[in-house]
Amino acid sequence: MKVGVIGGGQLARMMIPEAIALGIELKVFAESDGMSAEKSTTVVGDYTNAEELGWFADGVDVITFDHEHVPVKTLQQVENSGSSVQPPSEALQFAQNKLLMRKRLSDAGLPMPAWQEIKSPEQLDRFISDHSGRAIVKTPIGGYDGKGVRVVTDSQAVEDWFSQIEKLGGSLLAEQMVEFDSEIAVLSARTPSGEWRAWPAVETVQLNGVCSQVIAPAPKVDQDQALEIAESIAAELSVTGVMAVEMFQTKDGELLINELAMRPHNSGHFTIDGSVTSQFEQHLRAVLDLPLGLTDLTSEVSVMVNLLGTEKGTDFLENFADVMYRFPEAKIHTYGKSPRPGRKMGHITVVGEDLETVRSRALLAAAVISGS
Amino acid sequence: MKVGVIGGGQLARMMIPEAIALGIELKVFAESDGMSAEKSTTVVGDYTNAEELGWFADGVDVITFDHEHVPVKTLQQVENSGSSVQPPSEALQFAQNKLLMRKRLSDAGLPMPAWQEIKSPEQLDRFISDHSGRAIVKTPIGGYDGKGVRVVTDSQAVEDWFSQIEKLGGSLLAEQMVEFDSEIAVLSARTPSGEWRAWPAVETVQLNGVCSQVIAPAPKVDQDQALEIAESIAAELSVTGVMAVEMFQTKDGELLINELAMRPHNSGHFTIDGSVTSQFEQHLRAVLDLPLGLTDLTSEVSVMVNLLGTEKGTDFLENFADVMYRFPEAKIHTYGKSPRPGRKMGHITVVGEDLETVRSRALLAAAVISGS
Repeated sequence: MKVGVIGGGQLARMMIPEAIALGIELKVFAESDGMSAEKSTTVVGDYTNAEELGWFADGVDVITFDHEHVPVKTLQQVENSGSSVQPPSEALQFAQNKLLMRKRLSDAGLPMPAWQEIKSPEQLDRFISDHSGRAIVKTPIGGYDGKGVRVVTDSQAVEDWFSQIEKLGGSLLAEQMVEFDSEIAVLSARTPSGEWRAWPAVETVQLNGVCSQVIAPAPKVDQDQALEIAESIAAELSVTGVMAVEMFQTKDGELLINELAMRPHNSGHFTIDGSVTSQFEQHLRAVLDLPLGLTDLTSEVSVMVNLLGTEKGTDFLENFADVMYRFPEAKIHTYGKSPRPGRKMGHITVVGEDLETVRSRALLAAAVISGS
Repeated sequence: MKVGVIGGGQLARMMIPEAIALGIELKVFAESDGMSAEKSTTVVGDYTNAEELGWFADGVDVITFDHEHVPVKTLQQVENSGSSVQPPSEALQFAQNKLLMRKRLSDAGLPMPAWQEIKSPEQLDRFISDHSGRAIVKTPIGGYDGKGVRVVTDSQAVEDWFSQIEKLGGSLLAEQMVEFDSEIAVLSARTPSGEWRAWPAVETVQLNGVCSQVIAPAPKVDQDQALEIAESIAAELSVTGVMAVEMFQTKDGELLINELAMRPHNSGHFTIDGSVTSQFEQHLRAVLDLPLGLTDLTSEVSVMVNLLGTEKGTDFLENFADVMYRFPEAKIHTYGKSPRPGRKMGHITVVGEDLETVRSRALLAAAVISGS
């Protein structure tokens, strides 16, 4: 069994251990040499080039992804030549284009913040004044980790986007700014045959638009309701592989869909150390249409803290002895990247029984390894 | 941090995921192409050749092992050229030579079966008649998985060993055949700085001299006593890295040392899925003299079942869909070896709360994946 992953980042890297255990041959189509998933890199190439992707696809049983940047048209060419692409372009388009996603999920009657397709500054200013003088504006394609997303009080704040709106696809997406109590993510996996399994919903804590902490399970959320939304999306869009559904939980406990990702996701890294089946193993099973593994948690609670690159450019290895001595329970995961401020360099997970203890240990361990 | 592993088998293979997580560069000196640890193989060579090993050692921070077959003299040459070898040859000689081990541990007053160094058939026959007409005879060097070990009632049964006794080191080892109630193993790790941590003692079930099942923790054993013996051995012999101490438990609950292995060991595979720190991560930490990880179990009980090659030459991948569908809780580990009767091809671990349930699920899953 050969799985080809497009993209050589940390998500592809974390598939390697699971592929080794299961005896799956993992081939990676990386953007450049020396990336996180280097150990499995077999091709370095341009993922917008259908011909290069086609050669890569010919050598594997299924193509899947470390990121969502391969153009749908390119993927369709690969699919048309007979290769299995999971998730298929038909599903992936909704993860790539936030406007398409909003339209499709609205048609399906799923809960989400008020939104509108925006073609002009006037339209945006009207949306803003209709929604308490504020809105979130997004470029439909290409944003991640807070990029391509702005909180605005007037259309001038996205003047630069309007000036190149054709390049951005002809429209912007305006969304109501939700007063949320917490942010929730549901990780689940679905196979081409339709089997679906989810991990318990988690709480994600964002800092400057980047995920900082994940608490599993989410301390206060209607789990059934959260999982039902995720299951509807997976079935509705024919998603395959792991999918993350990020949601806002309002003060009334209402859940509103924020973003979708159709691949293993930062909010699911805790599953490596805190669940019977990790999201990376589950993704490999799902894209190969193998039965899914159990998603039970192995501990009462898991807390994952992201390790971000700092101005100092700290190399975590320098602090290994210190962090390992003080936190023998901490699970350290590094991504083999050169340090750059704000870059996701690794993560630490601590599991245990008491949320406050586990969280403070995880945060302290992350501070020690980051040299702060 | 670069760790060099001599030997390309499944133990080296299972170090790869841990090395990836920690960002340790793992280099493998393999015996041939296409071995289990292929993904990290950087050299294929002859491990009895000190010059080849020396080149390999120059490229890493520390040398460690997947097996115990590198001659002590060869290792000493590598050590003398300034390389760090963990465990050092001074410790490793006791894992390689069962007679040396018996002498050394007897001097230290540790509990073990009656034994004697044997140089002639007459000596062996006397030992046999002194021990109820039976004895276990071992070649001091080179045995594993039941090879180099015979249960005999007279010296004729090892006539072939006596005829080449000089080649075997000049002596055989005779041991009293212990009427044991169960077989126990203690896995522990020690750093060059002297930190030591152990996992709870496990019960091992052997079939035809090969480990078949491991139950963690051992259902009935004096854990303190078992761990104390392991700690004494580790300190006494200056062992570094992971060490397995196999013991017999008699009907009176007495523990007698059987064998030592100074490397990750089959009896510790359950730690991948059943402990905060796996034996493979712990081994890497230990040989690098980093602080050790927590050895707590994450579940009440873990059962590991070895997957052995059969006459049919079953490829486990053929049965993946079946075993995954029926046992979504089973953790499958394959070693990427071509099937050969009796060969260790992989293992399955199931964790849970109730021993009998967990054990029967693990055994059934192993039967299904093996196609039996």
